[in-house]
Amino acid sequence: MKVGNVNYRSVWRDGDSIAIVDQTRLPYEFGTLRLHACEEAAHAIRSMKVRGAPLIGAVAAYGIALAMHTDAGDDALAAATDMLMSTRPTAVNLRWSLMRMRKRLEALAPELRVEAAWQEAQRIADEDIELNRSIGRHGLKLIRDIQKPGETVNVLTHCNAGWLATVDYGTALAPIYLAHDEGIPIHVWVDETRPRSQGFLTAWELGSHGVPYTLIADNAGGHLMQNGKVDLVIVGADRVTPDGHVCNKIGTYLKALAAKHSSVPFYAAVPGPTIDWNITDAMGEIPIEERSADEIRFVHGLDGEGKVARVAIGAKNMNVANPGFDVTPPDLVTGIITEAGVVAATLEGLSSIRATSS
Amino acid sequence: MKVGNVNYRSVWRDGDSIAIVDQTRLPYEFGTLRLHACEEAAHAIRSMKVRGAPLIGAVAAYGIALAMHTDAGDDALAAATDMLMSTRPTAVNLRWSLMRMRKRLEALAPELRVEAAWQEAQRIADEDIELNRSIGRHGLKLIRDIQKPGETVNVLTHCNAGWLATVDYGTALAPIYLAHDEGIPIHVWVDETRPRSQGFLTAWELGSHGVPYTLIADNAGGHLMQNGKVDLVIVGADRVTPDGHVCNKIGTYLKALAAKHSSVPFYAAVPGPTIDWNITDAMGEIPIEERSADEIRFVHGLDGEGKVARVAIGAKNMNVANPGFDVTPPDLVTGIITEAGVVAATLEGLSSIRATSS
Repeated sequence: MKVGNVNYRSVWRDGDSIAIVDQTRLPYEFGTLRLHACEEAAHAIRSMKVRGAPLIGAVAAYGIALAMHTDAGDDALAAATDMLMSTRPTAVNLRWSLMRMRKRLEALAPELRVEAAWQEAQRIADEDIELNRSIGRHGLKLIRDIQKPGETVNVLTHCNAGWLATVDYGTALAPIYLAHDEGIPIHVWVDETRPRSQGFLTAWELGSHGVPYTLIADNAGGHLMQNGKVDLVIVGADRVTPDGHVCNKIGTYLKALAAKHSSVPFYAAVPGPTIDWNITDAMGEIPIEERSADEIRFVHGLDGEGKVARVAIGAKNMNVANPGFDVTPPDLVTGIITEAGVVAATLEGLSSIRATSS
Repeated sequence: MKVGNVNYRSVWRDGDSIAIVDQTRLPYEFGTLRLHACEEAAHAIRSMKVRGAPLIGAVAAYGIALAMHTDAGDDALAAATDMLMSTRPTAVNLRWSLMRMRKRLEALAPELRVEAAWQEAQRIADEDIELNRSIGRHGLKLIRDIQKPGETVNVLTHCNAGWLATVDYGTALAPIYLAHDEGIPIHVWVDETRPRSQGFLTAWELGSHGVPYTLIADNAGGHLMQNGKVDLVIVGADRVTPDGHVCNKIGTYLKALAAKHSSVPFYAAVPGPTIDWNITDAMGEIPIEERSADEIRFVHGLDGEGKVARVAIGAKNMNVANPGFDVTPPDLVTGIITEAGVVAATLEGLSSIRATSS
């Protein structure tokens, strides 16, 4: 998407290195970062310089290409895969992407792997964009259907599932961008999404694109839904199970409960690689990442000189727990917006798109 | 409650002035502040140096006493009442307390009003402590009933309804302090409660008293309940309607939804003056305070020199909405813990205690 006059992806190849948008500097400043080695890609994922399930998958694929530059042998491939796999446990796209890279490269002699790795990573990135455009088109139909003549459609979203969370365009935000671009009056309630405040990324994205938005505390969404101020909830996901459980950023479940209670449709926008066909027990089998307590104890803020600084807040010396994700059960999910269409959050609904989405 | 070796109330008379605990400096530092005039009391309420429905009521009563020192005439009494009434719209204790003060003082000649105002404010403060002790005793029974031999009782609370939110002891935290003091193993999940992060106050209170607690992001509570990690939710309230709607800090409703969905009992701990017997339409008649966007755009943090500073965060230049309260409907409320006992969140339940609580 455009930032100023330049069209960016959130990750791209640049010679023998890759470039990313450094998301830990946003929304304060927009900057890119060059990564030269697989270790750097792993660190970028772990430290959330890049985040969002689809983007994590793409960066990991490029990370394999970086690793192949140094050593394209079987052991090096296995080690790079393991290193990248261990960065984040919850998003399934990471595993999907690494397995695809490994399968492709293992079939080749080591001397062919460097170029093949770049090509396959590039394909994963390009395909992600296509998936998101398709999700956007299917979600756009939902927005069109909901809109009443002359009225603004109010969408609530949680975390960031925009172009910064993918290679481009976004999952949950793709339908919103398309609706805005075709002139549908649309306004987005953006959850702050503590502790990492990815809502700031969403607000920055939407604002940059000219989409009206209002940032709210994570506590506010239920009240807004109760009072008729939300027409639709769209979120992304880090993993969706074949029976329609949606694992996404912590707090998503609370918004799904509120949506159900106020009869507001609740959708997850999900590309095929986010569906984990191996899960049979969503509450038991999806590993929920417990992240650092410091994410709650510190915030990024501007210091006295207006520079971005990590600032200790009141929780500094307190006992803290910080689960990163939760699981929304299917009975709270109106539907799943996929690249192959909008389907029910059921075994039947998701099975119907399996052929095209995995 | 004790801070170090000294027993504090959150507000008390000190000669011809009043002293308060300055809650905007907590949890970084504990300090008190002297207020000499009604205007200062109003400012302390508006700026949340004091907050919590019962404490707001008590400070407003003392504010009337301060006003009477300057001018005890009818006009001055009316003006002081109006000024204090306008500070916060949602908590009903404020109105209750001011109406009680006014009724008492209007019956007296102006020359008798100064001493009578101090006495009546003192009575309101003393009574608040007694109400909270009674709430504590009734809530303690619930905790005893829930506890399984040898196991810890896990309570989740939102915002701060502890001794800092009342004159002493707290509403939601009173049962927890009593349970801890009688040796019941108890642990409290403390919601951060953005944007003002009153969870830091709750964590500070509990920590000071030796009660085990864990601070969590507001997004986490639903996930914890889904996973069997919460036995009981207890919150305070700013206003309860005769039919059992609970108006409390924004986000309370989301936790009530999650509690219902996971069959976790959800209680509001409420003294009589928090019940507004005049409300017939909870969703329509309770004014929901829209607070400053700056509460979301800035946080209190420690600067480079370790001093408390107001720090701009990512939301600094963003469009923001900040409703301060929400309303939880009675079907999500297991019961109301009052000074007269635990009652159903129904017209019948609350009517049964009207004689003793209003």
